Amino acid sequence: MSTTVETRTAEFRDYVKKITSYTQALNVLYWDKATQAPRNGMDARSEIIGTLAGEQFKLATSKEMEALLTELSEPSVLETLDEITRHSVLECKKEFDRNKKIPADRHQEYVVLTAKAETVWEEARANNDFSMFQPYLEKIVNFQLEFIEYWGHDGKNKYNTLLDMYEPGMTVDQLDPIFATLREKTVKLVKAIADSPNKPDTSFLTKNFPVADQEAFSRYILEKIGYDFKSGRMDRSAHPFCTTFNPGDVRITTRYAENDFNSALFSCIHEAGHAMYEQNINPELLFTPLCDGTSMGIHESQSRYWENMVGRSLPFWNHFFADLQKAFPTQFEGVSVEDLHRAVNAVTPSFIRTEADELTYNLHVMIRYEIEKGLINQTIQVADLPKIWNEKMKEYLGVEPPTDTLGVLQDVHWAGGMIGYFPTYSLGNVYAAQFVHVMENEITGYEELIANGDFAPIREWLKEKIHQYGKMKSPRELVQAITGEGTNATYLMNYLEKKYTDVYKL
Amino acid sequence: MSTTVETRTAEFRDYVKKITSYTQALNVLYWDKATQAPRNGMDARSEIIGTLAGEQFKLATSKEMEALLTELSEPSVLETLDEITRHSVLECKKEFDRNKKIPADRHQEYVVLTAKAETVWEEARANNDFSMFQPYLEKIVNFQLEFIEYWGHDGKNKYNTLLDMYEPGMTVDQLDPIFATLREKTVKLVKAIADSPNKPDTSFLTKNFPVADQEAFSRYILEKIGYDFKSGRMDRSAHPFCTTFNPGDVRITTRYAENDFNSALFSCIHEAGHAMYEQNINPELLFTPLCDGTSMGIHESQSRYWENMVGRSLPFWNHFFADLQKAFPTQFEGVSVEDLHRAVNAVTPSFIRTEADELTYNLHVMIRYEIEKGLINQTIQVADLPKIWNEKMKEYLGVEPPTDTLGVLQDVHWAGGMIGYFPTYSLGNVYAAQFVHVMENEITGYEELIANGDFAPIREWLKEKIHQYGKMKSPRELVQAITGEGTNATYLMNYLEKKYTDVYKL
Ligand SMILES: [Zn+2]
Ligand SMILES: [Zn+2]
Repeated sequence: MSTTVETRTAEFRDYVKKITSYTQALNVLYWDKATQAPRNGMDARSEIIGTLAGEQFKLATSKEMEALLTELSEPSVLETLDEITRHSVLECKKEFDRNKKIPADRHQEYVVLTAKAETVWEEARANNDFSMFQPYLEKIVNFQLEFIEYWGHDGKNKYNTLLDMYEPGMTVDQLDPIFATLREKTVKLVKAIADSPNKPDTSFLTKNFPVADQEAFSRYILEKIGYDFKSGRMDRSAHPFCTTFNPGDVRITTRYAENDFNSALFSCIHEAGHAMYEQNINPELLFTPLCDGTSMGIHESQSRYWENMVGRSLPFWNHFFADLQKAFPTQFEGVSVEDLHRAVNAVTPSFIRTEADELTYNLHVMIRYEIEKGLINQTIQVADLPKIWNEKMKEYLGVEPPTDTLGVLQDVHWAGGMIGYFPTYSLGNVYAAQFVHVMENEITGYEELIANGDFAPIREWLKEKIHQYGKMKSPRELVQAITGEGTNATYLMNYLEKKYTDVYKL
Repeated sequence: MSTTVETRTAEFRDYVKKITSYTQALNVLYWDKATQAPRNGMDARSEIIGTLAGEQFKLATSKEMEALLTELSEPSVLETLDEITRHSVLECKKEFDRNKKIPADRHQEYVVLTAKAETVWEEARANNDFSMFQPYLEKIVNFQLEFIEYWGHDGKNKYNTLLDMYEPGMTVDQLDPIFATLREKTVKLVKAIADSPNKPDTSFLTKNFPVADQEAFSRYILEKIGYDFKSGRMDRSAHPFCTTFNPGDVRITTRYAENDFNSALFSCIHEAGHAMYEQNINPELLFTPLCDGTSMGIHESQSRYWENMVGRSLPFWNHFFADLQKAFPTQFEGVSVEDLHRAVNAVTPSFIRTEADELTYNLHVMIRYEIEKGLINQTIQVADLPKIWNEKMKEYLGVEPPTDTLGVLQDVHWAGGMIGYFPTYSLGNVYAAQFVHVMENEITGYEELIANGDFAPIREWLKEKIHQYGKMKSPRELVQAITGEGTNATYLMNYLEKKYTDVYKL
């Protein structure tokens, strides 16, 4: 490496350290707003978040950044860089190019539009009035179509350009067969479950569970599975989330409902799954753009793995059932561990994605995937969405939302301009099942470990194979390296078929 | 106003909005670090605080800022500006000039030195080893002397330049007679108290007070006196503090000791006094450098007023005694309101300033004032501080610290380069007594209001006379406008003589 390159590398590292410092600060400001800030401080808080985000955007798109990236991404230079810097340069360049290709005035208009659209969406949802939201969504789709032209596309499917933002390398060609498998097998399974006379009793899950007891039990479980409270904390917010300031400070939030045992506990385990990913990223990646999960799909594979494949498994409850009964003696009186396992795995087609069970969840996602693909390929018009939405709900889930509030208006994603994000929710499930298949082969006594509450070997495996890398490996590289194949929905369907055959005695 | 001036004014307002956004963000980051952040996240947190503070410093000292200030502070332009902008320009200019006069490399060296000195001071204090800290303090004093040359001084006393940073307009010429009055009367009073046979019984204050009960009672009192929890919150930290993000979000912290009724409650009232100041600043000052207390002394007058002149008064406890007995029935069994009032006003010369009673507190401050004055005028050598410290303690308080840990090493201020700050603690007491004297004349039934727990008229008075202005009025202007005179320690001494004559039946 020449002295100039060395100097410029150091400057680049300093520069991205500065940019990632803003990310950390903004995450703190946002977390505090969602969990701690008093009502009267909200407006000023939103303003400073906007101001600092603007400052960060300026840094990330500056002439200085451009010069550094141009010099360091020169192939003859790039190959001399250490691995972390090389990946950082490539990651920043991707981001920089994406930002720079959009004319500044169009970007600004789009930011204003989506901010406004989120407010309008809230109102439209509250009033069950899709026509209010429709013109905004139309503009957002048109912006996305315009942006895709600036960004470029692979000539196969314009939607691929959007998918790549959330799941690098993911394409319609890969997703179509995945969802075809999910659709065919899930719809069949849902039907069989509906016809089964062996429905689990879920009534005890909606007894009274005092919030303080739920919180204590959730904390206990998270400590046991290995969420590190010395590197995080658990608070309350309107909607559960996980946020990372640095690997030593990864926080999760949840909300409690006194008459619902399910929601808080499993949402805590879910968020802890996200958090354990970030807590275990190689600390050397701190202050680089690589100190983050590699994709939304891989991130979701970690949360869904812990929530469903561990947390809703029979071995897990065989281990924790005594603790559960100690924590809630009256609520689970006369309930067996099998009863509990069946109850937390009950399947009920319903309207709202975020409340869906493990099985029908993918059908909710698929509906959104099909609609997004249609919108971006201009085979579906925004005006027809309520009708299309309800038809698809009827077809795949067998239920039809009585209102758009419970239908097409339920998610904020599109109002915020997030088109291409939804598929990552199902990809998370697909990846997780693929990883479990490998773990069963590679980790001795995998199921016994869960039954013994000995999660360390599992965490070690996840850390070694996935977590440590952050964004150093792409999702495709990870999946290929771990499983020896590409994305494959068969494992997920095998897992689900096995689970529900058992739960519903099919 | 010309169009150019109008444009430049708008640019200036935007620019200071950006700078104050950093202040708000940094305060959130610091608050979170002190109250919420998990152990493992601390190092990265400190780094991003350093990075963002550096970015803010760049903005505040930029060519752009210089150009704006030069244009807008031109007398013919300045007089055309609206009042808020005019004061903002002057405030920023003062800060800008102060920063710009120090050569960048010397500033950088100084920042590194004080960061290191704080660490060394901690160790020196832990090991009772002044000689460890001595070379650092010597360097800090030399830096201050060098900086005073850059900043300039009034030719009367170099120490005035430092005083002005914390209490604009304050000088040795004003402080010397104030401390002379305090010294003469306080020493006499302390002696009389020591000789009094009527010592209050304080034993019930150190019974067991469960932390949760203390917290609940403190919250109750703060709500009653008018700290607005919709514009703030109360948390725990190692050392109590108050921090402002914006007037709608002013937070306080405290710490609890299970065997000490005094410490948490009165520290909460103290911090709430600071907080009510900032909660009541005119919201139009948000995002200007004026949205802050006008000086350390005036700030402290608000906290000490609520803590001591309200919170430790007999009318206050006449009102709250029933609530207190309800909250702690066993602890205060057989205790009368007079007993309580006397106990919370007990005077005991002791070693540590932050634990000192209301009366001897000013003697602790005076010792530091005299030493600082001597250091900056080079009549006292750092090497002699332990000896000088102990002599003064002996002379004024009649007690001699057995170690430097309990003596000259107890405060962090000098390690952080804060020389000239200490006098503001006593100025707070002095101002507060002056304000009380006016309130007694201007607010009908002043004492009855406290005895009735009706604090609204007092809060309104404070808001109208002090709080609303933020930094729009200097401390001198405020004091002059409210009291019709300058700083005058007589009111404080009259108040203290009256209180202790009563408490100790002198
Ligand atoms: Zn998730
Ligand atoms: Zn204070």
